[in-house]
Amino acid sequence: MNKFFLLLLTFLISGQSLFSQTSEKIVYYQNIADTIVKTALRERKGYELLRELCEIGPRLSGSENSLKAIYWAKEKMIELGFDSVWLQPVMVPHWERGEKEFCAIYNENKLVKELNVLALGGSVATNPDGITANVIEVKSFDELKLKSNEVKGKIVFFSRPLDQGLINTFSGYGSAVDQRVYGAIEAAKYGAIGVVIRSVTTKYDNVPHTGVMLYVDSLPKIPAAAIGYLDSDFLSEQLKANPTLQLTLKLNCKTFEDAQSYNVIGEIRGTEFSDEVIVVGGHFDSWDVGCGAHDDGAGCIQSIEVLDLFKRLSIKPKRTIRCVLFINEENGSRGAIEYGKFAATSSEKHIAAIEADRGAYTPVGFNVDADSGTINKIAQWLPVLEKASIEWVRKGGSGVDVSKIKNAKALLGFVPDDQRYMDVHHSANDVFEEVHPREFELGSAAMAVMVYLLSEEGL
Amino acid sequence: MNKFFLLLLTFLISGQSLFSQTSEKIVYYQNIADTIVKTALRERKGYELLRELCEIGPRLSGSENSLKAIYWAKEKMIELGFDSVWLQPVMVPHWERGEKEFCAIYNENKLVKELNVLALGGSVATNPDGITANVIEVKSFDELKLKSNEVKGKIVFFSRPLDQGLINTFSGYGSAVDQRVYGAIEAAKYGAIGVVIRSVTTKYDNVPHTGVMLYVDSLPKIPAAAIGYLDSDFLSEQLKANPTLQLTLKLNCKTFEDAQSYNVIGEIRGTEFSDEVIVVGGHFDSWDVGCGAHDDGAGCIQSIEVLDLFKRLSIKPKRTIRCVLFINEENGSRGAIEYGKFAATSSEKHIAAIEADRGAYTPVGFNVDADSGTINKIAQWLPVLEKASIEWVRKGGSGVDVSKIKNAKALLGFVPDDQRYMDVHHSANDVFEEVHPREFELGSAAMAVMVYLLSEEGL
Repeated sequence: MNKFFLLLLTFLISGQSLFSQTSEKIVYYQNIADTIVKTALRERKGYELLRELCEIGPRLSGSENSLKAIYWAKEKMIELGFDSVWLQPVMVPHWERGEKEFCAIYNENKLVKELNVLALGGSVATNPDGITANVIEVKSFDELKLKSNEVKGKIVFFSRPLDQGLINTFSGYGSAVDQRVYGAIEAAKYGAIGVVIRSVTTKYDNVPHTGVMLYVDSLPKIPAAAIGYLDSDFLSEQLKANPTLQLTLKLNCKTFEDAQSYNVIGEIRGTEFSDEVIVVGGHFDSWDVGCGAHDDGAGCIQSIEVLDLFKRLSIKPKRTIRCVLFINEENGSRGAIEYGKFAATSSEKHIAAIEADRGAYTPVGFNVDADSGTINKIAQWLPVLEKASIEWVRKGGSGVDVSKIKNAKALLGFVPDDQRYMDVHHSANDVFEEVHPREFELGSAAMAVMVYLLSEEGL
Repeated sequence: MNKFFLLLLTFLISGQSLFSQTSEKIVYYQNIADTIVKTALRERKGYELLRELCEIGPRLSGSENSLKAIYWAKEKMIELGFDSVWLQPVMVPHWERGEKEFCAIYNENKLVKELNVLALGGSVATNPDGITANVIEVKSFDELKLKSNEVKGKIVFFSRPLDQGLINTFSGYGSAVDQRVYGAIEAAKYGAIGVVIRSVTTKYDNVPHTGVMLYVDSLPKIPAAAIGYLDSDFLSEQLKANPTLQLTLKLNCKTFEDAQSYNVIGEIRGTEFSDEVIVVGGHFDSWDVGCGAHDDGAGCIQSIEVLDLFKRLSIKPKRTIRCVLFINEENGSRGAIEYGKFAATSSEKHIAAIEADRGAYTPVGFNVDADSGTINKIAQWLPVLEKASIEWVRKGGSGVDVSKIKNAKALLGFVPDDQRYMDVHHSANDVFEEVHPREFELGSAAMAVMVYLLSEEGL
């Protein structure tokens, strides 16, 4: 109630609303926002850039392809006329899937069905002929613990599906992803020789979804893979009928020495406060299936397009706006850590950093990590942000990469609608054709409007 | 400012916020909303019903298929255990496309290209061999008037595209659809013998989009068709190079006598105020290409699912909730008019009517046509509605069908995200596969929560 009375006092003293004092400015900003939105939607320039990027293929950290894409992005930023463009070197993990995996159910040495499978990112290989063992199905680490004396020598099948009942699919993802990340550790505790998981996805199809998994040095490193959602149902049913069936799993992946890589950085220098920096970016690495169109080619290209929209519309930002394409978010965050180190020691002042890493769907809001005064200041821009489909500004949840920029005044996460994201996330279906041009361009526009307001108003 | 001070007075007198007085109730309602959302998302029952409906095929008013679908819906409502289910008879227009259309560009009698074409709904046929004439391209009725002395004996090509720059695609649609609805009237004024239009769509593909067109009795009725977006570009280019090219257009459509049809109606009677009725519905007819999955199979099945969610969750509504599937929205609104007549003379009190006819995408808000007190009352439910992805309640824009229920206290339009709707609207691409299960089910849930609140709180 205190805040309410403070607001009230202001009203009573001023005799007018807070908004009316600045209504002319709001209308001015709204017109700029309209122009940004119209330009993005009509020209679809970023969307066409994303098409180019996707033609290069997937961009897993340490891969040759990721370097091709890095050099492409650098050249593209130079072509677009950014004031400075550079590569920030960083060493990244280098894991390769190798030859295509194999997974199949056998009943008394007779093939029942081959399953759609993808090694999890970071998994060790099986021996060259694969591993064959009985399967124990569990739905949680608690259940695994209860059945721990049945695990030895078996392949553990973690089959708990993502909770479709949660309205936010990131929460749904969170309801199941522990099996993927920690499954091999938990299973190894009790002597399992391998792990398969039900793909963490909102789509009832049979395309497997990969993603990072972890080991600890104190336990044996056992191979781990994801199988398709429908094949997971099939395996469950088969196990009910025949608990002694055998699963063969063959993974050919390998971890190499760390590889040289780079963050790609481009900026337009501010005309008035060039030492105040607004970062906008996504992560440039992707998994090695599909082409990382939504995750996170889209966020990267939208971030490039933010700067390009300033160029196209001849808007000169008061503060420096910098596009940072962080490498290695998927399996190490090395790029973000490296940029964070630079930010910590730079004489510049990072006033804000915006991360786009939730797919290229219709914009709905911005998550903000900052003190409440700063969040309130940003929330007051909603009448302008609404022009770009932004409905709300909320506390918390900015993003993994920007969180490494610890000295920024505000960390922001761009939030689009998330209903379809987990359908394609980390799978071979994360391709350009799954990106809708208008939804993509609205994302570019929403971030450009936010960057424009930050650049004009500061924090 | 008056309203503000009134609110202030209430605060000061009561010594607490308006919301905190009812916070327990809000939490109670939020829990119900959560349950509704979870049930819809997990079970996908409505989505599977939509699949069944789409298997019947398109449902143009007066068609045999529309009757099949009507009987299917009636049986389905009975199966679901609604308290009463009935068909409300109404005569509807009956227009058929007939044999597939033909449209092609010729240069000195040599075929240049056959174009993708669809007769507009309601168009007369050409003569059986088609019409062949020079083409005059215009982008507006103003331009047509300026060039009126060049029109006689020609086919007018209305080529103005939908404005992609507008963030709301319904506004975009509005920026171009006059050419489709009134093009034949305007062109006939100056002696044109036919009309082709650029399809009104947000998608840069070559699938033509049909839709209603009108004639007036005082002018010759000339045939009118839509060609694909890309073919429209092609025709434009060809005309620049060769203004005397010839277009052949052959349409085989026919208007028959009005046909017997029905609104499909099912209800669950209220336990306390059974004479107070809340209508929820969509239009059951579709165009005759695709299967009207988004337009408006989705809105109809979501409306059925609203009632079924009450059944599944054993929620007994205080007021009567009635699902009305209006026939003939696309080319006549006869079903809505008939229901409106019934409502006007019924002893029941229609407190609210919700229309779902904007596709099955992620819910964002409700448009409300009502007095400001009623709108404010509904807007106070936002903390509950937010549980079903509803961000706002706004004045105006409820919907064509519910607008005929003139004695309802509030008319509501369910508003989902609209970025992809016009890609498929009125085209062969409006099929089940374009509907996303989670987006669809969230729509059912959002409307069910609104209906629940209306039923509990009244208006």
